[in-house]
Amino acid sequence: MLARRLLSSRLQSLRPFSSETPRVLKPGDVLRQTRIFTDEDVLQYSKVSHDSNPLHFDSEAARNVGFEGRLVHGMLVGSLFPHIISSHFVSPSIALSLNFVMPIVDDAKFKMSCFKNGELLVLGGEALALLQTLTMEERHCKEQ
Amino acid sequence: MLARRLLSSRLQSLRPFSSETPRVLKPGDVLRQTRIFTDEDVLQYSKVSHDSNPLHFDSEAARNVGFEGRLVHGMLVGSLFPHIISSHFVSPSIALSLNFVMPIVDDAKFKMSCFKNGELLVLGGEALALLQTLTMEERHCKEQ
Repeated sequence: MLARRLLSSRLQSLRPFSSETPRVLKPGDVLRQTRIFTDEDVLQYSKVSHDSNPLHFDSEAARNVGFEGRLVHGMLVGSLFPHIISSHFVSPSIALSLNFVMPIVDDAKFKMSCFKNGELLVLGGEALALLQTLTMEERHCKEQ
Repeated sequence: MLARRLLSSRLQSLRPFSSETPRVLKPGDVLRQTRIFTDEDVLQYSKVSHDSNPLHFDSEAARNVGFEGRLVHGMLVGSLFPHIISSHFVSPSIALSLNFVMPIVDDAKFKMSCFKNGELLVLGGEALALLQTLTMEERHCKEQ
């Protein structure tokens, strides 16, 4: 499945700090980080998110729907955003809004809501999806 | 760190499918899933995302900034959204927009952009953050 290694793993701050001058955030500051996601990252993320969409593991499945090859989970890529803030500040509270830039022709639009304890809205959003078929997969549903 | 177990792990579809009638998605359909995140989920997500913000591990740190206790990473909660779609359809391509509902008084606003190979914008967004201090953590930056 994930036999080949995509790329070596690396995470770095492109603006290392001097040990003498504490840096204080000011308007216009730029924080940058680079991360190369490995097969192992995708596998581990798939386990914890329970998201085993073949687009992340099967190059042919990904090419069949117009991508160059397997994709890293978008939400794993998105984890860079809170990480870059939490790696520079002590215990920051972070509220994010995110938009995935993906030129898909959507044939299904989902309104998404996530409630804590079935009551408290903690996360809202929208998903545009390109589906191979509108028939829902019994197999997938039964697995859960 | 994560000695206590938050809750047992469970993921279920609230609308099990009959094995006889294939279901076809139609306007107005509702897909629901419930997931209870465990300490182990938070730990594993922290490893793969490299996000070790104390708010996710240290109840006191979380209470100090006004939360009832430790928080599950918001992006891990957000992973429910692509998962619920990919668990019902074959190889769906999904573009998401997400908004975290968190009543924080922001003292820093970050514009977030993620580029593939330093060129192609794949993810954009905004983060509102409540920071304990605007001084940037040298320790955190050097670790990377």
